[in-house]
Amino acid sequence: MSLTIELHITTTTHLNLNPQTAISKRSYSIQFQSKSIYHSNPLTPLVLSHRKMCALPSSSSKVSFTVKSSLIDPDGGSLVDLVVPESERAAKISEAEAMPKVKLTKIDLEWAHVISEGWASPLKGFMREDEYLQSLHFNSLRMKDGSLVNLSLPIVLSVDDEAKERIGESIDVALIAPNGDLVAILRRTEIYKHNKEERIARTWGTTAPGLPYVEEVITPAGNWLIGGDLEVLKPIKYNDGLDHYRLSPHQLRREFDRRQADAVFAFQLRNPVHNGHALLMNDTRRRLLESGYKNPILLLHPLGGFTKADDVPLDVRMEQHSKVLEDGILDPDTTIVAIFPSPMHYAGPTEVQWHAKARINAGANFYIVGRDPAGMGHPTEKRDLYDPDHGKKVLSMAPGLEKLNILPFRVAAYDTIEKKMAFFDPSRAKDFLFISGTKVKLDTLKIKDI
Amino acid sequence: MSLTIELHITTTTHLNLNPQTAISKRSYSIQFQSKSIYHSNPLTPLVLSHRKMCALPSSSSKVSFTVKSSLIDPDGGSLVDLVVPESERAAKISEAEAMPKVKLTKIDLEWAHVISEGWASPLKGFMREDEYLQSLHFNSLRMKDGSLVNLSLPIVLSVDDEAKERIGESIDVALIAPNGDLVAILRRTEIYKHNKEERIARTWGTTAPGLPYVEEVITPAGNWLIGGDLEVLKPIKYNDGLDHYRLSPHQLRREFDRRQADAVFAFQLRNPVHNGHALLMNDTRRRLLESGYKNPILLLHPLGGFTKADDVPLDVRMEQHSKVLEDGILDPDTTIVAIFPSPMHYAGPTEVQWHAKARINAGANFYIVGRDPAGMGHPTEKRDLYDPDHGKKVLSMAPGLEKLNILPFRVAAYDTIEKKMAFFDPSRAKDFLFISGTKVKLDTLKIKDI
Repeated sequence: MSLTIELHITTTTHLNLNPQTAISKRSYSIQFQSKSIYHSNPLTPLVLSHRKMCALPSSSSKVSFTVKSSLIDPDGGSLVDLVVPESERAAKISEAEAMPKVKLTKIDLEWAHVISEGWASPLKGFMREDEYLQSLHFNSLRMKDGSLVNLSLPIVLSVDDEAKERIGESIDVALIAPNGDLVAILRRTEIYKHNKEERIARTWGTTAPGLPYVEEVITPAGNWLIGGDLEVLKPIKYNDGLDHYRLSPHQLRREFDRRQADAVFAFQLRNPVHNGHALLMNDTRRRLLESGYKNPILLLHPLGGFTKADDVPLDVRMEQHSKVLEDGILDPDTTIVAIFPSPMHYAGPTEVQWHAKARINAGANFYIVGRDPAGMGHPTEKRDLYDPDHGKKVLSMAPGLEKLNILPFRVAAYDTIEKKMAFFDPSRAKDFLFISGTKVKLDTLKIKDI
Repeated sequence: MSLTIELHITTTTHLNLNPQTAISKRSYSIQFQSKSIYHSNPLTPLVLSHRKMCALPSSSSKVSFTVKSSLIDPDGGSLVDLVVPESERAAKISEAEAMPKVKLTKIDLEWAHVISEGWASPLKGFMREDEYLQSLHFNSLRMKDGSLVNLSLPIVLSVDDEAKERIGESIDVALIAPNGDLVAILRRTEIYKHNKEERIARTWGTTAPGLPYVEEVITPAGNWLIGGDLEVLKPIKYNDGLDHYRLSPHQLRREFDRRQADAVFAFQLRNPVHNGHALLMNDTRRRLLESGYKNPILLLHPLGGFTKADDVPLDVRMEQHSKVLEDGILDPDTTIVAIFPSPMHYAGPTEVQWHAKARINAGANFYIVGRDPAGMGHPTEKRDLYDPDHGKKVLSMAPGLEKLNILPFRVAAYDTIEKKMAFFDPSRAKDFLFISGTKVKLDTLKIKDI
C-alpha cells in the first residue's frame, strides 16, 4: 500500500463561483504500486452502473500514468501522508520496539489516524509548542513562505508525569494503541506544559464543567503535551464494519478526479440526514451548475470520531446515509458518502474552521455551513453555548480559508401547504414545520415523507 | 488643532536588522495649521540643550512643507486621526446634542482617546461584530486587500438594556464623559450581544474570578456592545498635570523625524524603571548602532491607562522616569519619554500583541519584550497566570506583526562581585541579586545604586 504523488503546481487559487478561477489547476503524476484505491467503497458499483466510467487500474497492476486534476490545492501545497511504506515497515517496527512507549487513548488514536492521512496538512504530527500556541491564539499556522494555513483546534497528545519521566532524554518515542498494538513512532519530540484551563478557555470560550470533549479527554489527561513528527506503522483501522467508508483525502481526491469533478461541495453531519438536508444539497448542485460548473460532486461526509453520548451512533447514521442514496433522494452519480474520522470537540466557531479546513485537504472547494455548526447547549446555563450565527461569520473571515467558498445553509422546513420540504419563506412562516437533524431518530424517520 | 497628512507610500516593509531594509521608506506631506506639536513635552528643552536642532515651525505659523520620513508604516498604511477639525466642531456638537446619549466610564474614555489618536490604526471606532469576532478568534483583522493587521484585544463599548432601548433605531449616538461633557459621536452604529463569558475566556484564557479588568470593566458592563465610527469632538485631556506626556502617534512620529531617527525601539513599563532596565535600553541602542543604524531613538513608554490597585501610580512613575533622564542614566538626546494612554488588561500573550502593535503606529520598528509581559499571578491559584515564555513566543509569531522586530529582554541583575547591574551570567548564578520592577517602591529606590 504505497502511493507516490508528484505535484506540479501551475497556478495559485482564487475564490469565487466562476469555475474558471474558483479552483486551481494542477497536474498530478501518480505512480500506483499494487493498490486498489477504491476497492472498498460500497457506492462504487452503484456509481458504475449509472455513468460512463474512466478506466481504473486493476488492483494488481503496477502502472504509472498521469491524472489531470483541477481540484483545490491541499493546505501547504502537498498532501501529508505519514503511513510508513510497506517496504520500510519491519525495520521501523523493530526500531520502535526499543523506544520508550506512550499509550494512546481511543481518541488519541483517532487523531493519529487524522494526522497520518493528511486531513490536517501541512501538520506532520502532534503539535509542538510553537504550533500549539499559534493554533490556540490565532487559529492558524504560519508557513515558511509567510502564508497562513488554518488550524483552529490544538491537535495534541498528552502525557503524565510518569510517562514524561520514563521518556527522559529520549528523542523518539513509540505510540501504543489501547489494545497494545504498536501503531506509530513520534520523532524529534518536544515535551511542554499542558495548561488545561487555558487550552479549554481559548478553545471553547468557556470553562464551564460538562463539555463532552473536556470531560472525556482533557480532564483525565496528563499535565504535559508531547509534540513531534508522526510515522504511522500501518494504516489505522477500526474493524467495526465501517472501515470501507473511511476514505483518506488521497482516496477522495482520486475519486473526484476519476469522476472528473470540476467542483466539490462538502456537507458534514453528525446526525441522520433528512429531506430538508437533501433539498439543500440538491439545490446547491443546481446552483453550481447554473454558475457554470459542469460536474459538481457532493461529498456527504458524516463525522466518525468521538461524539457525545446523546448523538446518534455512527453505524446507525451510516446505514441511514446509504439508504438516502439507494432511494435516489441523492444522486449516487454525483455523491460520495464517506466518514470523516475526526473526533468532535463541540467547540462551535473554533471547530467549524477545522471541519472546513480538513475538507480542503480532501479536495472540496465549497463548504456548506449551517446554523450553530459544531455547537451545543451551554453545559450549565439554559442557552446555546455559541451565538448560532457566529459559526458561519467566523468561518467566512478565518485566516487560511480564503480559497474555500463558504455556502451558508438555506433553512428548509416542511411546507404544510405544498406538502413537501421547501426552503423556508418567512412571509408565510406559519405554514412551515421545522425539523432538526439532531432530533431525528432513525426508527421514526420516514425518509420520503419528511 | 488640525493636521492634514498626505501619505505617499513608495515601498513595502521587510524585517531584519539591516537598516537598509528594516523600515520602509515613505514621504509625508504635512500641512500645519496653527499647531505646535511638541510645545508641552518637558523633555524638549533638555533635548534642545544637548543637540543641534532642526528648525520647527513656530506655533503660530501656517506653513506647508514636506518631511522625509523613514519610519515604519502605520498599520493599514495611514494613521487614523478621529479628532474633528476645529472648524467643524460647533456644527458637530449641535448635531450630537440631538442624538441619543451613551455615558462612558473612565476606562471607556481612555479607549476613545486611544482609538481617536490612531494607536489602534486602522480601527476607526469601537468594534462592530465582524471586527470583534476577528479580534477574539484570530487576534487580527483582515484588510480589504487581504492583508492582516494585528488587533488582539477587543476594543469595545458596552451598553445596557435600557441604553439599547433608548437608542432604538437611531443610527448615530453621542458619547458622554463621566463628568457629563459631550466627547464624541459614534456613527453608523451596530448593536450586538456581549457574551461576557466567551469574551473573558478567549481574551484571558481563564474565567477565574479576580481578573482586575474583568472586575472593573466587564462584570459591571451591559449585555450589549455598540460598534461604530468614532468622531471625537475635541482632543481628550485628563487635566492631571500629565497631559503634556500624552503624545499621540502623530506627535511621536513627528519627533522621531525631527531627530532623524533611523530606528525606534520601544520599551513599555507599568512600574518604575531601575538600573537593570537602563542597562538593557543602553545595550539595545549599542547593538542597533553596531548593526549599522546611525541614530536609534528609545521610546520609553509607560502605560498610563487603568492599572490594578497595587501597581505604582502613574504620577509617581512619571516623576521617576524623568529623574532617570535628568540624572543621565538614559541619554535625553536619544530618548523620548511619553505616556501610552491605553488601559491595562493583564492578559499576557494576548495583550502584549496590542502593546507592540500600538507602538508600530507610533513609529517604533523594534519592540523590547520581557519575561511574562502583561502577565500577573493567577487570581485563584498559586502560580503565574501565563507561562512566562509564552508572551515573547506568541508575539514573535503573531499575524500582522511581521514588520516589527521583537527584541527579547536580556535579564539584568545586580552583580555582587562587580558591584553593578550586569546581564545575568548563569555560570555564576549565585553572584547575582534579582530585582523586579513590580516590587520596586519609589521611596526606597536609589537609582544609582541598584
